[in-house]
Amino acid sequence: RINGERLWDSLMQMARIGPGIAGGNNRQTLTDADAEGRAVFARWCEEAGCTMGVDEMGTMFATRAGEDPDALPVYVGSHLDTQPTGGKFDGVLGVLGALECVRTMNDLGIRTRHPIVITNWTNEEGARFAPAMLASGVFAGVHTLDYAYGRRDLEGKPFGEELARIGWKGAEPVGARRMHAYYELHIEQGPILEAEGKSIGVVTHCQGLWWLEFTLTGREAHTGSTPMTMRVNAGLAMARIFEMVQEVAMAAQPGAVGGVGQVTFAPNSRNVLPGRVVFTVDIRSPDQVKLDRMRAEIESRAAAICADLGVGCAVEAVGHFDPVTFAPELVANVRKAAEKLGLSHMDLISGAGHDACWAARVAPATMVMCPCVGGLSHNEAEEISPEWAAAGTDVLFHAVLETAGV
Amino acid sequence: RINGERLWDSLMQMARIGPGIAGGNNRQTLTDADAEGRAVFARWCEEAGCTMGVDEMGTMFATRAGEDPDALPVYVGSHLDTQPTGGKFDGVLGVLGALECVRTMNDLGIRTRHPIVITNWTNEEGARFAPAMLASGVFAGVHTLDYAYGRRDLEGKPFGEELARIGWKGAEPVGARRMHAYYELHIEQGPILEAEGKSIGVVTHCQGLWWLEFTLTGREAHTGSTPMTMRVNAGLAMARIFEMVQEVAMAAQPGAVGGVGQVTFAPNSRNVLPGRVVFTVDIRSPDQVKLDRMRAEIESRAAAICADLGVGCAVEAVGHFDPVTFAPELVANVRKAAEKLGLSHMDLISGAGHDACWAARVAPATMVMCPCVGGLSHNEAEEISPEWAAAGTDVLFHAVLETAGV
Ligand SMILES: NC(=O)NCCC(=O)O
Ligand SMILES: NC(=O)NCCC(=O)O
Repeated sequence: RINGERLWDSLMQMARIGPGIAGGNNRQTLTDADAEGRAVFARWCEEAGCTMGVDEMGTMFATRAGEDPDALPVYVGSHLDTQPTGGKFDGVLGVLGALECVRTMNDLGIRTRHPIVITNWTNEEGARFAPAMLASGVFAGVHTLDYAYGRRDLEGKPFGEELARIGWKGAEPVGARRMHAYYELHIEQGPILEAEGKSIGVVTHCQGLWWLEFTLTGREAHTGSTPMTMRVNAGLAMARIFEMVQEVAMAAQPGAVGGVGQVTFAPNSRNVLPGRVVFTVDIRSPDQVKLDRMRAEIESRAAAICADLGVGCAVEAVGHFDPVTFAPELVANVRKAAEKLGLSHMDLISGAGHDACWAARVAPATMVMCPCVGGLSHNEAEEISPEWAAAGTDVLFHAVLETAGV
Repeated sequence: RINGERLWDSLMQMARIGPGIAGGNNRQTLTDADAEGRAVFARWCEEAGCTMGVDEMGTMFATRAGEDPDALPVYVGSHLDTQPTGGKFDGVLGVLGALECVRTMNDLGIRTRHPIVITNWTNEEGARFAPAMLASGVFAGVHTLDYAYGRRDLEGKPFGEELARIGWKGAEPVGARRMHAYYELHIEQGPILEAEGKSIGVVTHCQGLWWLEFTLTGREAHTGSTPMTMRVNAGLAMARIFEMVQEVAMAAQPGAVGGVGQVTFAPNSRNVLPGRVVFTVDIRSPDQVKLDRMRAEIESRAAAICADLGVGCAVEAVGHFDPVTFAPELVANVRKAAEKLGLSHMDLISGAGHDACWAARVAPATMVMCPCVGGLSHNEAEEISPEWAAAGTDVLFHAVLETAGV
């Protein structure tokens, strides 16, 4: 068994870096707080006897050597970056859980055939730079390095420059490593495990996603002296699109979601009808056909809404992944570990995207999940119990050992 | 007649200060560009033989002496601040038109019984600091100085500190001056004069306004892993309120408008349902009863929309003025001046708010309007012809002389 107290202590230490405003964290990718968190994590890995590698996307790979010089490593990790008002566990549990597995191997003098690589992927959240899971996407060959470097935050700062600025642009080519397997522990970020009273989610699939960034063009005009009939009202078009997305998602129940998290109005003055409105629709489903049908319906209905109001409508897909099926042999390992440890478990489809989704393209991959209170995540009030964290990490430990070979 | 070429030349010189991104201006109140514009205007006033006074709100009063030491001054002005993506004429024409009247009096050696005071009111636009017409509102006793100093821009900077920072906080108590009359020349900012083929709008009334700032409280949660039924979706509530405002405004036709220009989403991340959504509804009507009925309907329907979604809803009125009836004797002067000059004219209700609306509370006041192309304003593409500018200023000149006494 892993050391639950040590794990919790490390989680709480990391949570002190990039504090939020309501008990959570703001340690967004490629900020100074991210650099600080990386330095602490690097020190912990070194203390655990690992060797650090950093690739051109800033992803950190801390290797614990294996016995067999020819055996490919088992990668175990997640991400240390957070949302602007993020929780203390989303991603962090997966990275520090992997570290705890290595620390426990050290404590118990366990040698594995395959090396173990604790992994901290850069920009999983996609909050500052869309899309999410950016570094693992480049690693898996889904995006080019140039594409990633050119992504910009809302202030217009490019990813590549910010990565260099915080000093974590490594020299190692992205995706050069080959993986024997990839495991990721993560909080569920949804309500199912808690509602069903299970400690462990055995993650069989992940739902797919589209991020559709709409740019609506209206006519900037005075809110007082412009008659209703003369308006080219991009804000009203946006409102109708929000309602339509809700309708499309509800009609696709069960097994689908749709919503909007980011909106920019320009010039954003109380007495000016907006000239430009930019927002991103987030739709997801584990069913590929349903997902793509939702996308098509949303785009065509949005075009009609805008045409009706004379508003210009452009759509760019700024994030996408297909639904994922995780590697059955690894999934079986996770289930077996939970059973061996006497932990209640159930199969689960991940509602959120994870680096495991991209890793699954280049290696057998799966995930372990633990509950979170009220299903709440992407919220500073995100909470888990030390027992849940320990149970998830125990399962991770045994599944990883099974694959890495003792 | 005034010197149309000199007027146009001054307009174009002012337009070079705080250039926009598309041919217009970004000379928002209390910015460095505002300070630069003020300095140029102050120099021009001095060159025209005027004496400058500045009050604690930063409003500039340039006095041309009169013949009668006991006669109260006739105030003539508008504002030099602009929207973030504003035009070259909104406000500026009224200030530089007043200056042109004084320059013409100097040219022609005209002495008036009452002094003339060219006036540049601070923060008419309300773009950076709500409400609009802030300095004239304090002058008229509608707001306290403390209230005005405490208003904050979107970055949280207080009005009082920004006024001191740009060096235009005067010592003169606000509202200490007494006015014999107040005249304001302004572009229409709407389509009526152009559509009717008239050169001059004789402004008899101004419609009233409410700015209702809504703060909606949702629950920040993951857009992917939060089931549709578990969402407390403040963005969806906002969309429904936008649509409802549109409905209420359309049902109140003719003689009413409603719309939204400013929206802030927090935390504004693509994969986080917003925890807080703030936006300002702008509703107007020349009919007091209708205006207040719209407000009541919007507030009660918004409360129902939010209750239905479990979203918290708070409303604050961050701007308000009642419909205004301008002084009949001054209105008659304007009409008479247009007739004397052989200019086509029509009576008009102002769709936008103006400093004249607050001045009307403490003195007889009215306005002169000229057309603008396509009725477009609060847009960098705002345009007028030199002939329209000159005709409006000619009418202003004659109306002011009538009131000031030659
Ligand atoms: N786990 C997680 O929150 N990932 C962010 C990417 C997504 O939006 O699903
Ligand atoms: N004239 C003008 O644009 N004033 C700004 C205040 C308003 O919104 O009416």
